[in-house]
Amino acid sequence: MNVFVIGIGLIGGSFAKDIKLIMPDSKIFGIDASDSHLEEALALKLIDEKSSYNDLELADMVIVSIPVDVLVTELPKILDAVNDDCVVFDGGSTKNLICKQLEEHPKRRNYLACHPIAGTEFSGPSAAIEGLYKGKTNIICEVEKTAFKLQERALELFQKMGMRIRYMNPDAHDKHIAYVSHLSHISSFMLGKTVIEKEKNERDIFDMAGSGFESTVRLAKSSPAMWAPIFKQNKNNVVETLEEYIQNLEEFKQMLLDDNFEGIYNEMNNTNKIKEILNGIPLNKK
Amino acid sequence: MNVFVIGIGLIGGSFAKDIKLIMPDSKIFGIDASDSHLEEALALKLIDEKSSYNDLELADMVIVSIPVDVLVTELPKILDAVNDDCVVFDGGSTKNLICKQLEEHPKRRNYLACHPIAGTEFSGPSAAIEGLYKGKTNIICEVEKTAFKLQERALELFQKMGMRIRYMNPDAHDKHIAYVSHLSHISSFMLGKTVIEKEKNERDIFDMAGSGFESTVRLAKSSPAMWAPIFKQNKNNVVETLEEYIQNLEEFKQMLLDDNFEGIYNEMNNTNKIKEILNGIPLNKK
Repeated sequence: MNVFVIGIGLIGGSFAKDIKLIMPDSKIFGIDASDSHLEEALALKLIDEKSSYNDLELADMVIVSIPVDVLVTELPKILDAVNDDCVVFDGGSTKNLICKQLEEHPKRRNYLACHPIAGTEFSGPSAAIEGLYKGKTNIICEVEKTAFKLQERALELFQKMGMRIRYMNPDAHDKHIAYVSHLSHISSFMLGKTVIEKEKNERDIFDMAGSGFESTVRLAKSSPAMWAPIFKQNKNNVVETLEEYIQNLEEFKQMLLDDNFEGIYNEMNNTNKIKEILNGIPLNKK
Repeated sequence: MNVFVIGIGLIGGSFAKDIKLIMPDSKIFGIDASDSHLEEALALKLIDEKSSYNDLELADMVIVSIPVDVLVTELPKILDAVNDDCVVFDGGSTKNLICKQLEEHPKRRNYLACHPIAGTEFSGPSAAIEGLYKGKTNIICEVEKTAFKLQERALELFQKMGMRIRYMNPDAHDKHIAYVSHLSHISSFMLGKTVIEKEKNERDIFDMAGSGFESTVRLAKSSPAMWAPIFKQNKNNVVETLEEYIQNLEEFKQMLLDDNFEGIYNEMNNTNKIKEILNGIPLNKK
C-alpha cells in the first residue's frame, strides 16, 4: 500500500510510525511545506521517500495533518489529484468548515473527516511517537458521505492502531470540542501570560512553581501556527465557552470578596467529581 | 530522634517516609484529627505509634502538615507543649498570617516557617510518596527568628532529602505563590466546572477529552478542605491575580470577536517562552 503523509509532524509522523509496524510492506511518502521537516522525517525513518502532489495519483491512502486553515485550501487540491480508489483523511481539530467546503467536491466520497483526539504539546517530526493513538478516541464526521470500501480501509487501520471510534456530526463536534479542548488551551495560554507578565522582573520566582503549575500551563507550549487557525474556524463556539468560563471565574472572585468561603468550598467539592470523569481518559506516558 | 508528624496525609506522610530512610533510628509518632487516618498511617508503616499532644514534650522535631486555618489555631498550642530543644516546622501554603500569629509567642524560636513546594492532587496517608521532596524548593520565611541549632537540625534533614532552600519574607511568599500556585488551582477548578455544567446531560462527551484537558483540570481534583482556607488567608493576593487573569481572558476574547488572529498568534507566541521556564521545574514521576 502506498501511504502519503502530508504534513509530517507530531500527528502525521505518529501515524507513519504505527503504519510501518502494522503494515510493514507499505511505502510511506512524505509531503511537507518545510523541506527541513522532510529531511528530518527521512533521517528519522518516518518516511521512505520525499514526494509531491504530482505523485498523489499513486496513493492508496493519504493522511493530511496540517493546520486547519491550510486544510481548507489544500484538501480540495489533494482530492483532485488522487485516484478514485484512494482514501484521504485528515486530523483537523475543527470539522465544520472543512466538511462544508468539500460538500460539492466531485471526490467527496474519497474523503473521511477525522479528528483523532491525541497529541502532546510538542510539534515537528521529532515529536512523533509510536502508539500515540492507542486507546484514544477518533471522531469521524459524516461517515455516510465516504465510499464504503474506503471507510473500511481507514477503519481497519484505526482498529489495528487501537483507536476507539465515535461518529458525530460536524456541528456537534465543533461545539463540544470547544469545551474539552479549545478552552483548555486558552485557559493555559492566559495563565502562562498572567504569570509571565507579573514575574518578568523576578525570573527566579519560578523556583516557587511546582508540578501543579506546570500541569495547568503545559498547553501554553503548543504551536501558535496550529492553534490560531483553530480558534478562527471555531470562533463562535470558542467565544461562548470563554464567556462561560470568565463568568465562573467572576463568580468565584465575588465569593472571595464576599468572604463566602463555604460557597467556595462547595464549588470545589462539586467540581471534585471531575476525578471520576478523568479516570476514563487515556493518557500518554511521558 | 523522636519525630512527631501532626496531620499524617500526603505532605506529612511523605516526610515520614523519607525520615525513615534517612534516619532509620528515629521513632515517628503520628497525631491526626481523624482516627481512621492514624490507623491507615500505622498500617502503611508511615508512623510507629499513634500519639497525642500530651506526648509532645518528648519530641525533637515536629512536622505540622494540616490545613492552614487549623495551623493558625494549633501551632501556638503545639509550641506551648514542646520542650525548649524541639524544632517545629509546618508545610502551609500561606505564611503571612501564621508568622504574624506567632510573632510574640514565647517559643517563637522553636518554630521554622516552611513551605515545601511539593504535592500531588491526591490526599490522605495513602497518597504519601517516598522522595516527593527530592529536587523541590522549600521556602523558609523569617529564618532569623528560629534558634540557630534548631534551624540546623531542620536544614540537615531538608538537605538529606534533596530539597533546594530559598529564603523569603512572608509577604513576598504569599504574593508570589498566589501567581504560581493558588491561581492555577482556581483556573483548573473553574475550567472543570465550566465543562461539567455544559456537558452534564451528555456525559459521554468526555470521550472527546484528551490528555491536554486532563492536564489543565488535574488540580480540580484537589482537596477543598485544604484549599478553601488557603484562599481565605491569601484573599487579597488571590483576588489580584484573578483580576489580572480575567482581564487577559477578556482581551483574548475581544481579539477573537475582532477577528484579530494575528494578535492571537502573537499572544500565544509570546507565551510559548513558558517552555524554557518550565524546563526548570522538577516534576513528580507518576
